[in-house]
Amino acid sequence: MEGSQLIRARRSIRNYQSGVKIPQEQIQQMLEAAMMAPSAMNSRPWEFVVVESEQVKEQLMEVHPYCKMLKTASLAIVVCGRPDLQASWGGQFWPQDCGAAIENLLLQALELGYGSCWCGCYPVMERVEKIQNVLSIESIPVGIVAIGVPNEHPEARGYFDPQRVKYL
Amino acid sequence: MEGSQLIRARRSIRNYQSGVKIPQEQIQQMLEAAMMAPSAMNSRPWEFVVVESEQVKEQLMEVHPYCKMLKTASLAIVVCGRPDLQASWGGQFWPQDCGAAIENLLLQALELGYGSCWCGCYPVMERVEKIQNVLSIESIPVGIVAIGVPNEHPEARGYFDPQRVKYL
Repeated sequence: MEGSQLIRARRSIRNYQSGVKIPQEQIQQMLEAAMMAPSAMNSRPWEFVVVESEQVKEQLMEVHPYCKMLKTASLAIVVCGRPDLQASWGGQFWPQDCGAAIENLLLQALELGYGSCWCGCYPVMERVEKIQNVLSIESIPVGIVAIGVPNEHPEARGYFDPQRVKYL
Repeated sequence: MEGSQLIRARRSIRNYQSGVKIPQEQIQQMLEAAMMAPSAMNSRPWEFVVVESEQVKEQLMEVHPYCKMLKTASLAIVVCGRPDLQASWGGQFWPQDCGAAIENLLLQALELGYGSCWCGCYPVMERVEKIQNVLSIESIPVGIVAIGVPNEHPEARGYFDPQRVKYL
């Protein structure tokens, strides 16, 4: 799909066809898209945890109150920030850099025919710490992205709001 | 261009053909793409300042040390966070939400044939405050995005790094 259509067609999907396995090649395409995002000083301050294990998905649902859609999702990709990769020059741009990476991931998922839902983690530190424990990671979970074949088809909706724009 | 190609073709462009005016319709397409990004609780915690004034571009270059490419850029779109729009439920996801909006903006610019460069602002507070003064805004500048017709054509480069991925 054309990029501009893709951007406008994306919706958060919270209900998926259960039992669908996503091929490894497509998982890698989504990760690659995420890693193609720009980042401050090209520091690429991110890492990713791909969760297909039903048990780990269950644990994530226990520690994050708003990711129940993982029940039917094929997998979760947890996008995590690596502040250490910006520390040498004092950069703290990693949350917004991870936001850009997540958007690429969502768009690539849609192009492959999948729906997705981004569940925020950082800076809710209680949530962050529990997810770190579940995944055995030291990086900082910014978003849990649920991915799967949509079992609902909400229409695209537009939000262009001229009142949010100032011209100088 | 197909979305997945667009994601992989994007590069930061720092040299533009000067004197090019971008049609208002295309400016609006870029703003619309930005506003189609997902956000926590659909709060859309953003606003935008489109800067075509040479004088204001000059002032931005004075207060932000790394946006000299504005000299030849057709315009800047300053993407600003609105924490107030997440305050009612205590959300502080606006920096990453703005990151997603910026990525959509960059992709839409590329699809329209423009190059772009994202210059980080928040959380460098000295920079933030000076930009707020230049633009007379209360929202928080997250990124200054320079946009114009590329006068350089760096090749796409790939960063897929399997060492940044853990599977569970």
